[in-house]
Amino acid sequence: MEEELLEDLVLSQKPDYATEIIGILRGNEAPRVIADKLSDYHEADIADILPIISEQERKKLYRIVDVSFLSDILESVEEEEASKYLDEMDLRKAAAILSKMEPDAAVDVLREIRKERRLILIDLLNDEAKKDIALIASFDEDEIGSKMTTNYVVIRENLSIKEAMHSLVDQAAENDNISTLFVVDEDGIFYGAVDLKDLIIARQGTKMDELIMTSYPYVYGHETVDDCLERLRDYNEDSIPVLDNDNTLLGVITSQSMIQVVDDAMGDDYAKLAGLTAEEDLQEPLGQSMKKRLPWLLILLALGLGVSTVVGVFEKVVAELTIIMAFQSLILDMSGNVGTQSLAVTIRVLMDENLTAKQKFGLVTKEMRVGFFNGLLLGIISFIFVGLYIGLVKRRGIAFGYAVSGCIGVSMIVAMVISAAVGTLIPLLFNRLKVDPAVASGPLITTINDLVAVVTYYSLSGLFLIGIFHLA
Amino acid sequence: MEEELLEDLVLSQKPDYATEIIGILRGNEAPRVIADKLSDYHEADIADILPIISEQERKKLYRIVDVSFLSDILESVEEEEASKYLDEMDLRKAAAILSKMEPDAAVDVLREIRKERRLILIDLLNDEAKKDIALIASFDEDEIGSKMTTNYVVIRENLSIKEAMHSLVDQAAENDNISTLFVVDEDGIFYGAVDLKDLIIARQGTKMDELIMTSYPYVYGHETVDDCLERLRDYNEDSIPVLDNDNTLLGVITSQSMIQVVDDAMGDDYAKLAGLTAEEDLQEPLGQSMKKRLPWLLILLALGLGVSTVVGVFEKVVAELTIIMAFQSLILDMSGNVGTQSLAVTIRVLMDENLTAKQKFGLVTKEMRVGFFNGLLLGIISFIFVGLYIGLVKRRGIAFGYAVSGCIGVSMIVAMVISAAVGTLIPLLFNRLKVDPAVASGPLITTINDLVAVVTYYSLSGLFLIGIFHLA
Repeated sequence: MEEELLEDLVLSQKPDYATEIIGILRGNEAPRVIADKLSDYHEADIADILPIISEQERKKLYRIVDVSFLSDILESVEEEEASKYLDEMDLRKAAAILSKMEPDAAVDVLREIRKERRLILIDLLNDEAKKDIALIASFDEDEIGSKMTTNYVVIRENLSIKEAMHSLVDQAAENDNISTLFVVDEDGIFYGAVDLKDLIIARQGTKMDELIMTSYPYVYGHETVDDCLERLRDYNEDSIPVLDNDNTLLGVITSQSMIQVVDDAMGDDYAKLAGLTAEEDLQEPLGQSMKKRLPWLLILLALGLGVSTVVGVFEKVVAELTIIMAFQSLILDMSGNVGTQSLAVTIRVLMDENLTAKQKFGLVTKEMRVGFFNGLLLGIISFIFVGLYIGLVKRRGIAFGYAVSGCIGVSMIVAMVISAAVGTLIPLLFNRLKVDPAVASGPLITTINDLVAVVTYYSLSGLFLIGIFHLA
Repeated sequence: MEEELLEDLVLSQKPDYATEIIGILRGNEAPRVIADKLSDYHEADIADILPIISEQERKKLYRIVDVSFLSDILESVEEEEASKYLDEMDLRKAAAILSKMEPDAAVDVLREIRKERRLILIDLLNDEAKKDIALIASFDEDEIGSKMTTNYVVIRENLSIKEAMHSLVDQAAENDNISTLFVVDEDGIFYGAVDLKDLIIARQGTKMDELIMTSYPYVYGHETVDDCLERLRDYNEDSIPVLDNDNTLLGVITSQSMIQVVDDAMGDDYAKLAGLTAEEDLQEPLGQSMKKRLPWLLILLALGLGVSTVVGVFEKVVAELTIIMAFQSLILDMSGNVGTQSLAVTIRVLMDENLTAKQKFGLVTKEMRVGFFNGLLLGIISFIFVGLYIGLVKRRGIAFGYAVSGCIGVSMIVAMVISAAVGTLIPLLFNRLKVDPAVASGPLITTINDLVAVVTYYSLSGLFLIGIFHLA
């Protein structure tokens, strides 16, 4: 309850900021005064009002607020939105803002701007921004290099503490990420990193070498995000340097972009588990959404048709004992659920650690044990209830009811154990084949489980109920 | 290919570190020398060798490496693992390490240590650590306060630039997170924040007020993680202050813990989508895993039994025209898949932004449109193939085949549109009721979709195939 209250209290702050900001903006004080007042607010809060106010008011804002603050503001909105606002400005202003933005953010925004305007804008960027943006745009979106910023402090390895401190102060004006200083040799080869904190508390006469962490972690720009995500998380650092193939320092991954990257990676796995090829967002047009969903649906349809033909094989069994088809969905669903659970667990485990063969084996057996014991419990429950249902509600007699529900219970246990195994083995296999298990596993598992469940269920029924008990 | 190569190249570095580190540790140089050499390595790399080496070698490491480095090392391993290592040390050492650790990490580790030892350890902590740990332990695990650290730099609002700089240097030795300085008034009420960078480049005589961001974002310790996660991500800051209900500064959330929090939040949703109550990890005992999975399976079983009774109602239809039951699984699976897709999209959208009624309506209609067009396509495909299959493979004649597959095609379209709607509406509803949609939606949607699909399919078949075409 108290949380509720506090939450409302806090959430009610942001609208307040919004009204304050809009109030200031609409006021008719001198531009300078308005600019000063606005500078007290957080860029994210100012960004929040942009969609609310009119284009005229936005244009007033563009004129009043200085370029670097505008670039901070645009960095904290979605790319599409940012590109829309840039379209409202004259080219020079837009170019100036893009030049000030984090290069990786600028690249994302530029991607959203229509070609002819984009080319002019790039042409108008200041040379450094042009260089940085070209560098970052040179990486594919799934390469870690595309997530880096060139906005960091770099020093030579042969400086004294004093010189290093000076060099920091010089660069700090231009670069935000100062908590770690990166050290290179005369050829720009990455040499190590210095924690700003150590530099600040270092006594006079301390040797720079004592401060430089020479085994500071790093990644290569061409590594795929998935490949180095795990390491980025392991090393609990604010920023990790990105090197080219010659170990030259190109840029850094800040923890801010790491949050983004982790979030995206998880989001994609999440989407894939649900049979989407990638994550969707709200503004996305119909066509794109369909493109992201159809591939799986088509595969699933093909597989589903396969399953149906198998079920078709048991037509005779069902014809003789129709009641059993009523519980097909039950067994299919349950084994499907168990398979999905094992799949999800396995994928997350694979995402978090690199497993030894022994661990993998352990995982599979564990999943099968879980599947068995859950199956046992659920099998017994359904045995009891289905028996009663057929016997009493459907009026086929208790004996008949429990014969059928016996089949159901057993089939359920068998199906769940196999599903658990399949749900673990297949992602492990795909992972081994360097195919993203989150993409490939889902449908395959569902199908195999469906087949297993159907075959077990109907053959057991055919064998015992019709073959032996002659219940047909 | 090149990525492959680079990846192997890079991955091959970590084992190298490991062998180097182990080599140094096993060498028989003076402790001081070994300590110096080890200090060149990243704590995460040293942490990696702990499971590999023997307990004796670990104990040698504990003796040689100083406490603060040991605490860094233990911070970068899992809680269970860390607690195991602490058990290998004498109490005073363990307590000293815990005192040095980030309080939030220390709390997590302490949770893993058996009660009697834990109480002694807490008793042995130094007073400050005791205070910090007590503070953080006072928050529930789902409250943001439990994720904060008390390891930050705080200054009074009335200092001059020079004084602030001094105060920073004094505190820097003790506190890692220095990139943002937090400002409080004489009562410790949060007043704003100063970017270290601005402080460093500030000219003499600049007023402190010009550097203080008075509308710097903050959260309240008792807010649930889910409630403020979105804001934490919005404000692209390295660290965000945590206040108590009287707006006193308690601690900060660092971007490092934010990465963890974002990852956990996503991981839980991911698990929930798969019908797990929470994320599982590798070491987890069988019992716990079952506990996390059974709740859903039981609910799903109950719902599944419900569906089966409904299917049972159509026993007569099936008895007269058994072939149709072969395609039940097809329609159920497809509508299930579409429902899951809509569910996943909706949950992620809800996680990322707070929607207006208009946007919600837009989302629902969009999902239905996607469902319809995908359904149309898939319906036509199955119409064609199923018709051929029944007509030719099953030798029932083309006319009969296409009558049946017509029913299947139409049922599929209807089922998919409704599934898409249900898959969107239910999470929106739960979200409105402040129930986590990721938990509650899954099974309900599956069931409703199963029911819709079964009823549509069998009633259409009964009506047209048996009632009108008399195909029975």
